Amino acid sequence: MTSSRKKIIGVIGAADAVPEDLNIAQTIGEEIASNGYTLLCGGMGGVMEAASKGAKSKAGTCIGILPGSSKTDCNPYIDYAVVTAMGHARNVIVVGSCDAIIAIGGSFGTLSEIAFALRLEIPIIGLNTWDVSSDIKKANTAKEAVHMAIELIDANN
Amino acid sequence: MTSSRKKIIGVIGAADAVPEDLNIAQTIGEEIASNGYTLLCGGMGGVMEAASKGAKSKAGTCIGILPGSSKTDCNPYIDYAVVTAMGHARNVIVVGSCDAIIAIGGSFGTLSEIAFALRLEIPIIGLNTWDVSSDIKKANTAKEAVHMAIELIDANN
Amino acid sequence: MTSSRKKIIGVIGAADAVPEDLNIAQTIGEEIASNGYTLLCGGMGGVMEAASKGAKSKAGTCIGILPGSSKTDCNPYIDYAVVTAMGHARNVIVVGSCDAIIAIGGSFGTLSEIAFALRLEIPIIGLNTWDVSSDIKKANTAKEAVHMAIELIDANN
Amino acid sequence: MTSSRKKIIGVIGAADAVPEDLNIAQTIGEEIASNGYTLLCGGMGGVMEAASKGAKSKAGTCIGILPGSSKTDCNPYIDYAVVTAMGHARNVIVVGSCDAIIAIGGSFGTLSEIAFALRLEIPIIGLNTWDVSSDIKKANTAKEAVHMAIELIDANN
Repeated sequence: MTSSRKKIIGVIGAADAVPEDLNIAQTIGEEIASNGYTLLCGGMGGVMEAASKGAKSKAGTCIGILPGSSKTDCNPYIDYAVVTAMGHARNVIVVGSCDAIIAIGGSFGTLSEIAFALRLEIPIIGLNTWDVSSDIKKANTAKEAVHMAIELIDANN
Repeated sequence: MTSSRKKIIGVIGAADAVPEDLNIAQTIGEEIASNGYTLLCGGMGGVMEAASKGAKSKAGTCIGILPGSSKTDCNPYIDYAVVTAMGHARNVIVVGSCDAIIAIGGSFGTLSEIAFALRLEIPIIGLNTWDVSSDIKKANTAKEAVHMAIELIDANN
Repeated sequence: MTSSRKKIIGVIGAADAVPEDLNIAQTIGEEIASNGYTLLCGGMGGVMEAASKGAKSKAGTCIGILPGSSKTDCNPYIDYAVVTAMGHARNVIVVGSCDAIIAIGGSFGTLSEIAFALRLEIPIIGLNTWDVSSDIKKANTAKEAVHMAIELIDANN
Repeated sequence: MTSSRKKIIGVIGAADAVPEDLNIAQTIGEEIASNGYTLLCGGMGGVMEAASKGAKSKAGTCIGILPGSSKTDCNPYIDYAVVTAMGHARNVIVVGSCDAIIAIGGSFGTLSEIAFALRLEIPIIGLNTWDVSSDIKKANTAKEAVHMAIELIDANN
């Protein structure tokens, strides 16, 4: 029987991000939705909110894997709020649920997610982010990043 | 700003369930979808699969909070697979992500979820299930259970 | 090679407990330590603190599996504070780490732990607690509870 | 009231490590125990086992935060096995439970732990490991690493 499962592209990055990264994140969210993929993120502000806003502007779907214990403590663009109440341990769930991941900028929380993606061998594309492995594919633009993510997902299926 | 967040009704019960409970679960899934709510479950077989099948038959949406580490190790009706790789600890996430929960039959795993729902004060409706608290509202039919869940969600908003 | 692993007896029960349960918990802690076993609990107040106090009064060792994110937010009798920052999900770790468990009184949090113990087939002894399965062995006194726990551990080895 | 809590030094590094790192880890374990601190690690092989072996050779105490669901699936030097059954999410617990951490070599799992330590502002000392932040204090020898860890713990108290 055919599976109903939708392919998911994750966007990871800081809650406290510079304007340039927010612009990139929003365009990435738009491209993910325009290409028919589901966006998954940590559900909070900054890069997560910008990407979610972009996806919703193109009628996309956003899943937020929340660190806290409240369903409503997330950005307003999240369709499906998954309440982990597990703090940073939710980073493992963010990463493990994605078919491909795009990392934008980011601090130590993002680094932990990149490390898990590399450990779990989930395709990861980076923009202005941690350069800790050649397994992080570098993209120069938002469109290119989403294009690379889709190619990597297709190559795995 | 208005939140995009969809209201979620969880269905909990055994992977190894009797036919009567599976029939009830499927009708509950249908009713959840027909009334415009999102179904969330543990993503696996038995009651979880029957409810997911019911929801999909009415063009609904199913979120599965998976215990394992594989995106594809879930029932075929799951739209959004959340990969926790946390085994039984995922039960806390199943419960915490729901606006209301319907418990059908079930063994010790279901009992742990009922206990968390009671602890977190998330509305819970029971059908042929553990009778451990008067805070579990008893329903006699699938339709009644979903109707009660919706009333409890509305009362909380 | 011989394993260094110490045998662990868990004590579970409410942070907000009646004096009778606190007295029982303290004696149970004393007996666990006197018999050379390690006490493990959720690390907080009430039954957890009383049991820890009892164990320390007999030169025993106490492990606390903490729900919060602070090393020092635990009762003063904890030797080894394991910081989960995972809230109620830490209940799964409390249960899974024990060779046998003694449940005293308790509310819904304790019920979730009892359910996990039954699910994981970890020997469990109950005193004035949830009566949800004949697999919970009933004890009438603190000494009897610890004696039963030790017998069940020995039977498994 | 005085807390019974013991100060913990964590050792993180790969299960699949080169001999040089294993030798360093063993000496670090010896030094941790000789100085009266408790060793905490992920409980498995490689660097974790070597450090545990070192600590036990000096009559120290070893806590293992295990990724799996079996109490006995750990290295033979672990005194207290904490069974998380949470896979990589246990890395958050390893890090959060330590007063200071020493990283030796390591791959992506270790990188995730370093990232969490930096995020949680837990003192971290590195030997031949990921160089992702100036907040990782560099040590050249095992003895120096433990000496630095103890100084950082003392400075925080």
